[in-house]
Amino acid sequence: MTQAPSISVGIVGGTGYTGVELLRLLSQHPNVRLHAITSRSENGMPVAQMFPNLRGHVDLRFQTPEQADLRHCDVVFFATPHGVAMREARSLLDQGVRIIDLAADFRLQDTTAFEHWYNMPHSCPDILAQAAYGLVECNRPAISAARVIGNPGCYPTTVLLGLAPLLQSTRPLIDTDHLIADCKSGVSGAGRKAEVGMLYAEAGDNFKAYGVAGHRHQAEIDEQLRRLAGGRDVGLTFIPHLVPMIRGMFSTLYARILPEARDVDFQALFEAHYANEPFVDVMPAGSQPETRSVRGANRLRMAVHRQKDQLVILVVQDNLVKGASGQAVQNMNLLFGLPETAGLAHVALLP
Amino acid sequence: MTQAPSISVGIVGGTGYTGVELLRLLSQHPNVRLHAITSRSENGMPVAQMFPNLRGHVDLRFQTPEQADLRHCDVVFFATPHGVAMREARSLLDQGVRIIDLAADFRLQDTTAFEHWYNMPHSCPDILAQAAYGLVECNRPAISAARVIGNPGCYPTTVLLGLAPLLQSTRPLIDTDHLIADCKSGVSGAGRKAEVGMLYAEAGDNFKAYGVAGHRHQAEIDEQLRRLAGGRDVGLTFIPHLVPMIRGMFSTLYARILPEARDVDFQALFEAHYANEPFVDVMPAGSQPETRSVRGANRLRMAVHRQKDQLVILVVQDNLVKGASGQAVQNMNLLFGLPETAGLAHVALLP
Amino acid sequence: MTQAPSISVGIVGGTGYTGVELLRLLSQHPNVRLHAITSRSENGMPVAQMFPNLRGHVDLRFQTPEQADLRHCDVVFFATPHGVAMREARSLLDQGVRIIDLAADFRLQDTTAFEHWYNMPHSCPDILAQAAYGLVECNRPAISAARVIGNPGCYPTTVLLGLAPLLQSTRPLIDTDHLIADCKSGVSGAGRKAEVGMLYAEAGDNFKAYGVAGHRHQAEIDEQLRRLAGGRDVGLTFIPHLVPMIRGMFSTLYARILPEARDVDFQALFEAHYANEPFVDVMPAGSQPETRSVRGANRLRMAVHRQKDQLVILVVQDNLVKGASGQAVQNMNLLFGLPETAGLAHVALLP
Amino acid sequence: MTQAPSISVGIVGGTGYTGVELLRLLSQHPNVRLHAITSRSENGMPVAQMFPNLRGHVDLRFQTPEQADLRHCDVVFFATPHGVAMREARSLLDQGVRIIDLAADFRLQDTTAFEHWYNMPHSCPDILAQAAYGLVECNRPAISAARVIGNPGCYPTTVLLGLAPLLQSTRPLIDTDHLIADCKSGVSGAGRKAEVGMLYAEAGDNFKAYGVAGHRHQAEIDEQLRRLAGGRDVGLTFIPHLVPMIRGMFSTLYARILPEARDVDFQALFEAHYANEPFVDVMPAGSQPETRSVRGANRLRMAVHRQKDQLVILVVQDNLVKGASGQAVQNMNLLFGLPETAGLAHVALLP
Repeated sequence: MTQAPSISVGIVGGTGYTGVELLRLLSQHPNVRLHAITSRSENGMPVAQMFPNLRGHVDLRFQTPEQADLRHCDVVFFATPHGVAMREARSLLDQGVRIIDLAADFRLQDTTAFEHWYNMPHSCPDILAQAAYGLVECNRPAISAARVIGNPGCYPTTVLLGLAPLLQSTRPLIDTDHLIADCKSGVSGAGRKAEVGMLYAEAGDNFKAYGVAGHRHQAEIDEQLRRLAGGRDVGLTFIPHLVPMIRGMFSTLYARILPEARDVDFQALFEAHYANEPFVDVMPAGSQPETRSVRGANRLRMAVHRQKDQLVILVVQDNLVKGASGQAVQNMNLLFGLPETAGLAHVALLP
Repeated sequence: MTQAPSISVGIVGGTGYTGVELLRLLSQHPNVRLHAITSRSENGMPVAQMFPNLRGHVDLRFQTPEQADLRHCDVVFFATPHGVAMREARSLLDQGVRIIDLAADFRLQDTTAFEHWYNMPHSCPDILAQAAYGLVECNRPAISAARVIGNPGCYPTTVLLGLAPLLQSTRPLIDTDHLIADCKSGVSGAGRKAEVGMLYAEAGDNFKAYGVAGHRHQAEIDEQLRRLAGGRDVGLTFIPHLVPMIRGMFSTLYARILPEARDVDFQALFEAHYANEPFVDVMPAGSQPETRSVRGANRLRMAVHRQKDQLVILVVQDNLVKGASGQAVQNMNLLFGLPETAGLAHVALLP
Repeated sequence: MTQAPSISVGIVGGTGYTGVELLRLLSQHPNVRLHAITSRSENGMPVAQMFPNLRGHVDLRFQTPEQADLRHCDVVFFATPHGVAMREARSLLDQGVRIIDLAADFRLQDTTAFEHWYNMPHSCPDILAQAAYGLVECNRPAISAARVIGNPGCYPTTVLLGLAPLLQSTRPLIDTDHLIADCKSGVSGAGRKAEVGMLYAEAGDNFKAYGVAGHRHQAEIDEQLRRLAGGRDVGLTFIPHLVPMIRGMFSTLYARILPEARDVDFQALFEAHYANEPFVDVMPAGSQPETRSVRGANRLRMAVHRQKDQLVILVVQDNLVKGASGQAVQNMNLLFGLPETAGLAHVALLP
Repeated sequence: MTQAPSISVGIVGGTGYTGVELLRLLSQHPNVRLHAITSRSENGMPVAQMFPNLRGHVDLRFQTPEQADLRHCDVVFFATPHGVAMREARSLLDQGVRIIDLAADFRLQDTTAFEHWYNMPHSCPDILAQAAYGLVECNRPAISAARVIGNPGCYPTTVLLGLAPLLQSTRPLIDTDHLIADCKSGVSGAGRKAEVGMLYAEAGDNFKAYGVAGHRHQAEIDEQLRRLAGGRDVGLTFIPHLVPMIRGMFSTLYARILPEARDVDFQALFEAHYANEPFVDVMPAGSQPETRSVRGANRLRMAVHRQKDQLVILVVQDNLVKGASGQAVQNMNLLFGLPETAGLAHVALLP
């Protein structure tokens, strides 16, 4: 029996929800050794004291970056606010450490858009230029060769995977000027930040839209839609909503079928497109996916419906897993030549 | 000081959510005297035993229809399953009793559609022909003269009021062939019926679409949209979703602006349209309404957004109040010449 | 017809949950005129912009205390953090304004305990000495004559009203050295403050105890229990818990019946004790009260159970109404000679 | 490398929550091969159609017991209503199949109590007499030798493990005549049954006690407490409550310390008692456990608090894992000589 390769992993940040979720996944990954986790503000605190679900599973304490000495890692995950990874990327890369950033620093090639939405200049456009957009199902070759991966946002993951089979088709199928993404997210998408609007007493028993005038993920979605469409501009109206649930994301995508594509079997098209993807589940015709069917699992499920010339794609994922930390581990697996499913075989928790 | 007119009210059914909500509203209505409430299955049980919020407010017991002798009422509300009101309507009308049906029996003039969606023939098409569709803001004259009112469904209320200013405009404003209504409802919309899918353990911490292949309210919406549009057919894709909250409905409506209407000030159009409506609140430009802002109140709020040539209307209501029992009381007020707001001035419960 | 007396009311604070709840209740109170509401931080903002449920009901804007000129009010409610009311009380009292404080400044006569639990010295012990503890059912004469009222805490309201019939009995009934109050509160009890622990993603789908090592309300409960017991010390173990719901408080009280009291009919005792109280509902024997039966209503319900020599009292209230703002209005009614139920007849919202 | 032993497993029932949870755990257990799952009513339906979280993990279809031929299994789990396992036990035992029953058929040795609480005579008292009570931490030797295991109820698991260190002590520590267990359960404890009281619209945003007049688990707790106490009767008041959350159980246990035991270090006592238990976590002094810290994990956490002569033990578990299916797998592991933790190393899902 050969020894499984052991990857030394560091986590920068880690006091938020993507951080604790990375720890849940990595602490049981057969090929991973957790080297260190950093947080200046929580320096010295056992991780399991902040996140008691990790008691008995993770013995690390938060360290300062200096103590952590991440240069000895094979890969470092940034589970930090936007702007941190790009500051620290170069010195790690110089040591041969690979980087997977769960924030937005390496998602948008359009630095003007980045600066507009994230209110900061991009500090390393040269590194950004080499970074791969970490949506594995659409970008495998680039990711496996990359040194820096920009892990996709949660909304973009659902919208892009839901529309990819339509946009990547060789013949035109839909009106790409007037797509609609009506998206709904659980509250954990807002992160573990003290904000009045995310209190249980505010977000509970309530439903609302937000960011209607413009949401950061729009730029990321637009850039990637254009790529999927072979460089053509794609017009998308994107309306995010907040659901009183902890985890889960549901995107209802509307596309108008072109007159010349009315004969297409869209169910078959989607099934064929994702036939070999372990983490994308095209459900049988007529299905109505539920977010809980992927709670805690690195899986995205979708169903294809049609009403006359209107195509309706329903997509669900766990925003913290396939929409964040699970996808990051999937990227790591690809990067290090492991089976993509290594450490990611969890069955969703239902009920 | 003149005595306020006192209306004698009967309720048929009343063991469901629209029933208890009617009782909450009517028990404090200054012009109402509750005559009787009927339920064969619960005959003899104090209403306040089933619904303990009514302890100290409603002393009635459920009675059989025979005991209740509803012929002495001025008006009878049917808070029953579909099909009951049409069976009992004629004998009440013969006695001069007016009828407000909260089920679907008197909503759809198209009896073929009724039979398709509700799996039963319509037993009194002649009465149906005289019934008024009880969406007050769109149908005041007919309602005030009616003997039978079909109280609108919850989804239709949001979709119709959200689109009316566009469809009733004298000049064409939007592409009426490709409207989209992405609707989200709290679980009380499913009623107080023992169903596995509505258990807390199933519907909690979860989000899903349902009825994607076709929902009963589609026919009702289509019939009324056509009316609002002056008889022209209107094409609408309607996708309902289930939200883990008790009360509340949120409809996100998408309409494409016609090239010739790009100069229209839609905010002003909506504000003017509803300027005198006590129960419709067109919020200031840029607003993002929340369902909790109307929890327990007979009010529908909406906000008008625009992204290039795409109009996005956000509509919220409490599905049990403006979407059901409150609207029924509003109809009663109109029917009996009371101020429409009588007994309906509740401030929503927030948080 | 004589004109109802109109009370001019000011509110200091009002950006929290007790503030918005006061506004909900007072804006529909038949004898109240809202004079002003103050908030330095939100000066100039319409109240209804922060709390959209008030749109169409409250036209006030937040003002600075200087602008508000509260000296012209008949009564001022303090819905502020602890420590504010005692700073501002004297100047208002000098103008003849009465004060109802929803914070803790005038609850505890024991200033040492106050300083221990609230980390500040008491700045006006002379005014405190004249203040009445605003638990109407136990303290009517003092309240009606008072100039300053300390509105009770939410937990104390349930514990005190649940135990009062036992402690005020002329013969000894229970072992008063070993009482237990296992209390459960909805999250709105923590107020509208940005705190990580109260985020939906933290408090949702979760149950926990808190403050086990000591909770501020213990001192208040102890002081009042002693009063109810005629000056004798009472021993109570008080364990508060946090429930994933917005409003509602449930207290399970355990008392051991003394051997000499085994013949007592406790159900009858409780019913007699509260026979004339409009806001206390002793439910029939065998009842199991639910928090939702009082959601939004100024009512406290209780049920009396017995297992051998163990008495178990179940008490529910809405922590923001009978546990805070509704009780404050009840105090105001008493203070101004109005019927105690004026403006407080709401039926609870169920479901 | 030696091949891990493969246990052939059958499941009877499996359309409820303990069933789907068994499938989640067993489908990833390294030593288990799922042989069959039976349900007469769902015969032929793919399990993953009913429980979509199992898509891609479990390919079985529900079968009739006849088709399933469970005699070839090594062990059969009964995830059925009470009364099924005792009917089918003998024929399976005759074939050498071991039985783990998740219902109550083999929990209570006192058949009179069984008949009282479950309204049916016990059909195989001889088999019952040999059955082991499956609370591993208290009953290891008997379980490992058993052919039939009665898997404990969820409430009893928390109460018994929370009190065992006190009752099994060689010196008397607490007043065992007046113990109190104030217990709170998530709604999944009621099972996947269509019941009005468990609807989201009924159980959501609500808190209540239930079964106050007597709960089935009381008899089971009493019988086992007596055993832990060496045969002495123990007096316990047990009040269960329903929490608006899906999974999770919280028990607050109150015990009065005897005068002669006031010097005992209870924290140390508990830590020593459970020092070698992989699934019981005695948290550091001062801790306040949360149910979410064990969501999805086979772990029970507890904290020991003291207020003067009152001991307060706080216990949390996931009612479907340590309180049901996880504990059943733990029993299976013990029965077949596997490490108790095999297939049970899940990290709880937080948030």
